[in-house]
Amino acid sequence: MAGSDIFLGEFIGTMILVLLGDGVVANVLLEKSKGQNSGWIVITAGWGFGVAIAVYVAGWISGAHINPAVTLGFVAIGQVGAMDAVIYMCGQFSGAFAGAVLVWLAYLPHWGKTDSPELKLAVFCTGPAIRAYSRNLVTEIIGTAFLLIGVMGIFNANNGIGSGFGPYAVGILVFSLGLSLGGPTGYAINPARDLGPRLAHALLPIAGKGHSDWAYSWVPIAGPVIGGVLGAVLYQTVVTRLVVG
Amino acid sequence: MAGSDIFLGEFIGTMILVLLGDGVVANVLLEKSKGQNSGWIVITAGWGFGVAIAVYVAGWISGAHINPAVTLGFVAIGQVGAMDAVIYMCGQFSGAFAGAVLVWLAYLPHWGKTDSPELKLAVFCTGPAIRAYSRNLVTEIIGTAFLLIGVMGIFNANNGIGSGFGPYAVGILVFSLGLSLGGPTGYAINPARDLGPRLAHALLPIAGKGHSDWAYSWVPIAGPVIGGVLGAVLYQTVVTRLVVG
Amino acid sequence: MAGSDIFLGEFIGTMILVLLGDGVVANVLLEKSKGQNSGWIVITAGWGFGVAIAVYVAGWISGAHINPAVTLGFVAIGQVGAMDAVIYMCGQFSGAFAGAVLVWLAYLPHWGKTDSPELKLAVFCTGPAIRAYSRNLVTEIIGTAFLLIGVMGIFNANNGIGSGFGPYAVGILVFSLGLSLGGPTGYAINPARDLGPRLAHALLPIAGKGHSDWAYSWVPIAGPVIGGVLGAVLYQTVVTRLVVG
Amino acid sequence: MAGSDIFLGEFIGTMILVLLGDGVVANVLLEKSKGQNSGWIVITAGWGFGVAIAVYVAGWISGAHINPAVTLGFVAIGQVGAMDAVIYMCGQFSGAFAGAVLVWLAYLPHWGKTDSPELKLAVFCTGPAIRAYSRNLVTEIIGTAFLLIGVMGIFNANNGIGSGFGPYAVGILVFSLGLSLGGPTGYAINPARDLGPRLAHALLPIAGKGHSDWAYSWVPIAGPVIGGVLGAVLYQTVVTRLVVG
Repeated sequence: MAGSDIFLGEFIGTMILVLLGDGVVANVLLEKSKGQNSGWIVITAGWGFGVAIAVYVAGWISGAHINPAVTLGFVAIGQVGAMDAVIYMCGQFSGAFAGAVLVWLAYLPHWGKTDSPELKLAVFCTGPAIRAYSRNLVTEIIGTAFLLIGVMGIFNANNGIGSGFGPYAVGILVFSLGLSLGGPTGYAINPARDLGPRLAHALLPIAGKGHSDWAYSWVPIAGPVIGGVLGAVLYQTVVTRLVVG
Repeated sequence: MAGSDIFLGEFIGTMILVLLGDGVVANVLLEKSKGQNSGWIVITAGWGFGVAIAVYVAGWISGAHINPAVTLGFVAIGQVGAMDAVIYMCGQFSGAFAGAVLVWLAYLPHWGKTDSPELKLAVFCTGPAIRAYSRNLVTEIIGTAFLLIGVMGIFNANNGIGSGFGPYAVGILVFSLGLSLGGPTGYAINPARDLGPRLAHALLPIAGKGHSDWAYSWVPIAGPVIGGVLGAVLYQTVVTRLVVG
Repeated sequence: MAGSDIFLGEFIGTMILVLLGDGVVANVLLEKSKGQNSGWIVITAGWGFGVAIAVYVAGWISGAHINPAVTLGFVAIGQVGAMDAVIYMCGQFSGAFAGAVLVWLAYLPHWGKTDSPELKLAVFCTGPAIRAYSRNLVTEIIGTAFLLIGVMGIFNANNGIGSGFGPYAVGILVFSLGLSLGGPTGYAINPARDLGPRLAHALLPIAGKGHSDWAYSWVPIAGPVIGGVLGAVLYQTVVTRLVVG
Repeated sequence: MAGSDIFLGEFIGTMILVLLGDGVVANVLLEKSKGQNSGWIVITAGWGFGVAIAVYVAGWISGAHINPAVTLGFVAIGQVGAMDAVIYMCGQFSGAFAGAVLVWLAYLPHWGKTDSPELKLAVFCTGPAIRAYSRNLVTEIIGTAFLLIGVMGIFNANNGIGSGFGPYAVGILVFSLGLSLGGPTGYAINPARDLGPRLAHALLPIAGKGHSDWAYSWVPIAGPVIGGVLGAVLYQTVVTRLVVG
């Protein structure tokens, strides 16, 4: 795969992911939005389907990792080289930033009408329901480990899943992770999805914004990276090596 | 493709789209309806699945653009001729009008029981959450651009998606766009879906109806047209030309 | 197809349909049920997925019409013979009755805890949001006509949909019809689904039940039958005959 | 199939099932969780998609029964041997226990913030809406019988469903059973899903926990086992033997 394809696919895919993912949070949280207070099923469906669309668009271009935790998990088991991984992550972080800018534009009249700076930040990046860094880290590790196990399970050659249905199945996986494991930390499970928009929040002239909660920002980076590597290595070790077949 | 097939497919497809799409809004907004106040997940699922059904029925007949923004996007990249585009759009606008008439009939006892003329208008066509035309235009442009990028991404030959699963995937795309980008303007992302039913609202003898908000009506036409052309050209330029493969 | 297969498939399929369909209404309406007041998305998903499961189980046995309106629509266009149609409908009505008995059993402790006889009846069969027979009839006609158009569109040979994905697509069609057209009458769109359970309601020793609203019972029979024939004939006439291809 | 593959597949699959299933209950019930009070659609989607992911991951390894009621149903019709069944169930119960431990970890900060011991228990295992053991047993029998009928119907060779779409279809089946039959008992329909986490509840140092309601624990074991055997035998007897084809 050419490096330019990797960058392009990851940029487009992660941009779509964050546009649709942060977009649904904006819809639910911002004042006067038509989807205001429409609940967790809307949030999780929005992120899940956002992943599906992103993978439909970018899957055949770059593989659509759209998540540094996925890329680093694949590095850990030798499926992606270190050089390529850098290109993957450049595309992911810049695409996530671009997606956040588009959300800001799409919801432009709503920022000034929303009082709470906390809600505005929550559109862009995750925060803990109960602030307890080491425990929040554990939640992100578990969620991302099962993201990797799920992705590798879905696309295991024995399932024979193709690029017609596969992206939808991955969307359902993320929908499911949000429903079931999103409660304590808002399920970053993706460093680019969190850091890119957090940076956009810091830089964009958002009406009435507050601080960008950089104190928490390491958790949704470290947790997903640890979890992604752990999940990929566990799957590789346990399933690929131990199954007799 | 014969011109009569184009007209027929687009008429049927857009009629189904608006029957199911405006129908779900009627269900959620009209007084005494069993789905009253059932929320954004119902609205967006209704529109998304409505698209899926419309494309199942009309896809093999005319390609099921069911949206002038899609047709004009394809014109912009040379996939549809100008003459055919006129036939496409005639089918789309007349089908949308017919679908709106059916919604009026299906919910006939409910119009007189609903006091608010604003709610009655909202069944037929979109309106902004916060009235700010240029910003509303931006929202519609972004939404429709990613509708085109999503459609072209899903049906890209590299995905090998067929007419068995493809219509469902497009339905999920529209479900997703509604969840994530529908908050500020109610996501017309389709001039026929907005203008056809708005005209029906103006002409039908709806009990206790108010004005048809023609002042806003150019936004859900101009926005989707600009966005559709932009999305198609961007996809064609960036993905089709730049990907090395 | 052997007559015994027709009866068996329709009995099992319609029993599953009503068990899962009336079951979800019981869950939402009955006192102390864990899904009480969980809303229209639960009702419509329950019926839609119930159709999908019924068609998975019975599709290859009898074709899984599970609905006299579908059978009579197919009779009207010459796809099913009159003799077979009688067997189809015997299976459908008896299966629907059996499904309703199972719902009564599954929710046995809840009937006595629920005060309202109206809610108990609503578990079994449909009733109008606003009682106006001729208008309720129109709603059922429109809904069932598009059920037939949708079914024939989904399974049109040009889509190449198979028995792996087809039942799910039909489930989404019914999910969609419920979301969009279920508001005024609770979308019987199926005489067996309404009459079978209504009879069960009349006969079963349901704690604290009221009358079975036989005055309305002809609407969810006549409407679906008219709509089913209309939809099938329209599809056959307009699509099958007019499309040049 | 090697015994080690059976154990491994069932352990992983049931662990994923309970992690995602009990996880969604934690999200909806525990204090301060972001999905708190998000309703029955979230609960049932979480369990349904959890099944789908579990079957994607474990399906090709062990067949992904992930449920002793399924295994014993297959034993009853001679598709699984008694020796293998023991290995299946060891994997299922231990996997369910492991999944429950992961849920406890993922939601670690929330146990102490939640007052009600009843809600904490409900995260782990099922309880009746109205306590009436024999009637609760009937509900579990009906639900599990149709789980087996649904699974055998979906994977009947005549449907030609593959490992690409099949796991999703089974997920929709469980989603549907939850929507429609989950009201009275919270739909265990799986002894491992109930007993494993109940044991975890009894053993884990959960902040402020109460008793583990062992008095009820036999119902979600006996009901699913009876229902599973009944459903498998009925399907085998009625469909496999009676259908002329």
